[in-house]
Amino acid sequence: MPVNLPIVQAHELLPIQGINLRYAMAHIRKPNRKDLLLMLLDEGANVSGVFTQNKFCAAPVNVCRKHLQHIRALNTDENILALIINTGNANAGTGESGMQHANATCQAVAKFLNIQAHQVLPFSTGVILEPLPIDRVIKGIDDMQIATWLDAAESIMTTDTQAKAYSKKVLINNEYVNITGISKGAGMIKPNMATMLGFIATDANIAQDVLDDILQHICNNSFNCITVDGDTSTNDSFILIASNKCKNHAMIDSIDAIGYAEIKQALLEVAQYLAQAIVRDGEGATKFICIDVKNANNKEDAKKIAYAIAHSPLVKTAFFASDPNLGRILAAIGYAGVDINIEKLHVWLNNICVIYNGSRYIDYKEEQGQNIMKNSEINISIDLNQGNQNAMVWTCDLSYDYVRINADYRS
Amino acid sequence: MPVNLPIVQAHELLPIQGINLRYAMAHIRKPNRKDLLLMLLDEGANVSGVFTQNKFCAAPVNVCRKHLQHIRALNTDENILALIINTGNANAGTGESGMQHANATCQAVAKFLNIQAHQVLPFSTGVILEPLPIDRVIKGIDDMQIATWLDAAESIMTTDTQAKAYSKKVLINNEYVNITGISKGAGMIKPNMATMLGFIATDANIAQDVLDDILQHICNNSFNCITVDGDTSTNDSFILIASNKCKNHAMIDSIDAIGYAEIKQALLEVAQYLAQAIVRDGEGATKFICIDVKNANNKEDAKKIAYAIAHSPLVKTAFFASDPNLGRILAAIGYAGVDINIEKLHVWLNNICVIYNGSRYIDYKEEQGQNIMKNSEINISIDLNQGNQNAMVWTCDLSYDYVRINADYRS
Repeated sequence: MPVNLPIVQAHELLPIQGINLRYAMAHIRKPNRKDLLLMLLDEGANVSGVFTQNKFCAAPVNVCRKHLQHIRALNTDENILALIINTGNANAGTGESGMQHANATCQAVAKFLNIQAHQVLPFSTGVILEPLPIDRVIKGIDDMQIATWLDAAESIMTTDTQAKAYSKKVLINNEYVNITGISKGAGMIKPNMATMLGFIATDANIAQDVLDDILQHICNNSFNCITVDGDTSTNDSFILIASNKCKNHAMIDSIDAIGYAEIKQALLEVAQYLAQAIVRDGEGATKFICIDVKNANNKEDAKKIAYAIAHSPLVKTAFFASDPNLGRILAAIGYAGVDINIEKLHVWLNNICVIYNGSRYIDYKEEQGQNIMKNSEINISIDLNQGNQNAMVWTCDLSYDYVRINADYRS
Repeated sequence: MPVNLPIVQAHELLPIQGINLRYAMAHIRKPNRKDLLLMLLDEGANVSGVFTQNKFCAAPVNVCRKHLQHIRALNTDENILALIINTGNANAGTGESGMQHANATCQAVAKFLNIQAHQVLPFSTGVILEPLPIDRVIKGIDDMQIATWLDAAESIMTTDTQAKAYSKKVLINNEYVNITGISKGAGMIKPNMATMLGFIATDANIAQDVLDDILQHICNNSFNCITVDGDTSTNDSFILIASNKCKNHAMIDSIDAIGYAEIKQALLEVAQYLAQAIVRDGEGATKFICIDVKNANNKEDAKKIAYAIAHSPLVKTAFFASDPNLGRILAAIGYAGVDINIEKLHVWLNNICVIYNGSRYIDYKEEQGQNIMKNSEINISIDLNQGNQNAMVWTCDLSYDYVRINADYRS
């Protein structure tokens, strides 16, 4: 059971003009599940992407990077026209044949749609180091059905227990534009530049370079703030699509353009919802934990401390046990590798001060900590009182179910 | 049940001339257990120590550092004459009163033995952020009994399920000298310069500066190679004592001295045994895993990769499940933050090549991996084929019992 993640209904997800969806049950790893998704983009869409920093990045990630570069280098009206996403197999650690399979996937889509292979972006997620069953993928491409956004979200799930999708409207120049996004991921989650898989589309008109900047900004403040287990995946990809279909506003081509601030904020909210949804559905999660580090000398230091806490198995099991074990939090702060002045450090659990000037706050009572720990949403704030840089990380606890899920043979 | 850790018998532990032991049941946290240990050193002993790098280091760690510095600055014949170790309470995150308690402990020992307080080194281990019950510690000091080395090992246990102690004889100049060491620790284990608590004593004659160098060498190749959960404790301390009581060999005062090589090697073996014992008794451990990274550009890179694998919850749960999930190992190598050439990388499980040139070895069969994974001792070797620097890390798997032990309220 995810932590406070409402089950999304198909009717809550707004259509995006200029984007059409197809899915198939291609039996890639398991029978009778939606495991192949095709996103069709009209001419004129802009697409931005960021990808995993893992050195063992998957073949499709390499192909995505290559196709995006190629399209931009052409500098013509040609754009990305299709995204093909399979679940069940990550096509990672698969060497040369993995690249051949990723390319063959793009070629099959291109043939099916009568477009160029470099106009297709491929994505894979699932088990690493096993050959992609390319025949089934190609057969699936020939046998697709019209999909809703909910079908789309379902088609990219692996160990996710719930589909993750979210929509938002934003008013620009008296016209509503739509944003809809989907994401997947529950384990091997500590994105570094991008999450497992996240796709957000809007029908707003956004120029390519502005879209690139917005992508980076919202990624840094959403998918790059989450961790389940500290394991950065080989396949992390986050894609932002502007279909540029709105009639009432001009192309948003600078930060001063009408609608820039509104669309950027709305895209950020969708990205944050989808990123948090991954943590809420984190493998075995029973609690959603926000770690907020304030007043560090630099952002890097603040992030290091937040991640040290978020990755500590001792902190995570204490949260699972609803144990306000402050010592484990302090120990994690202490080994984060940051030069801190302990005597200036304060810590709060929700609105209760627990550590003041580096030691237990004199008025703090154990019962207060226990009461807070019983909640399913908990905030840890750390004030370093050294500089003015902050960072926030969202994570979950470490439960028996985390071990059960990941000790299942080849989950 | 620890992984292949024989239960140590009192008679297996060799006495060390010039060192006497006392213990008490001081009821520091729980009644009726040995929880206070006093090590008495004769005049003329040399003592070296390394301590945690955690910024929130415990009060006794600060006092140890101060007393060792003070003794050396004096440059007289005065030496450390007593080590006092309590379990049940770490005296960490306790601010000014924690320092007062650590000093009061030294003063109580000094008064009891009629020595100076700065000739006493205090150590604490146990729960963090709770005040040390100083009255019980002081009462315990007044009420101690003669202890064996096995009593000593038992007196410093916290969540350890077995006492950890080991002895070795080494022949120097036709005379056997003895080495006996004890250690403790099962969780919050990722020492950085030292382990939770480790004490090794020998009656060999070793000059202070040589002892310091040997300490650093054996620490780097034993306690600094282990990790259970990646959590560096606030109280890590590793102490090496030479009581200098041997009649047949001169003071070992240089690397050319008679006995230098032999004693260094024997001390290393004792330290490695004790360090591995901590991993074998790691919280919830069912498997002992050696990660061996070879031919990196530098030692730092090799360590980063070894620790990325050792800390990955996904790798650790796969080992628990006896699942040869190579993808998780590759992903961890890939996100270790090291610039590697994937196409030159090979991986072995025990003597079976599983990854060759960055992808699945063509002759590797899943059954081979499964057979290896069923063992309780597993070796992962990674050859980067880039430089000539190596690192080794010992760790254990992540089981249901790890969660159970650490989700017990305030274990």
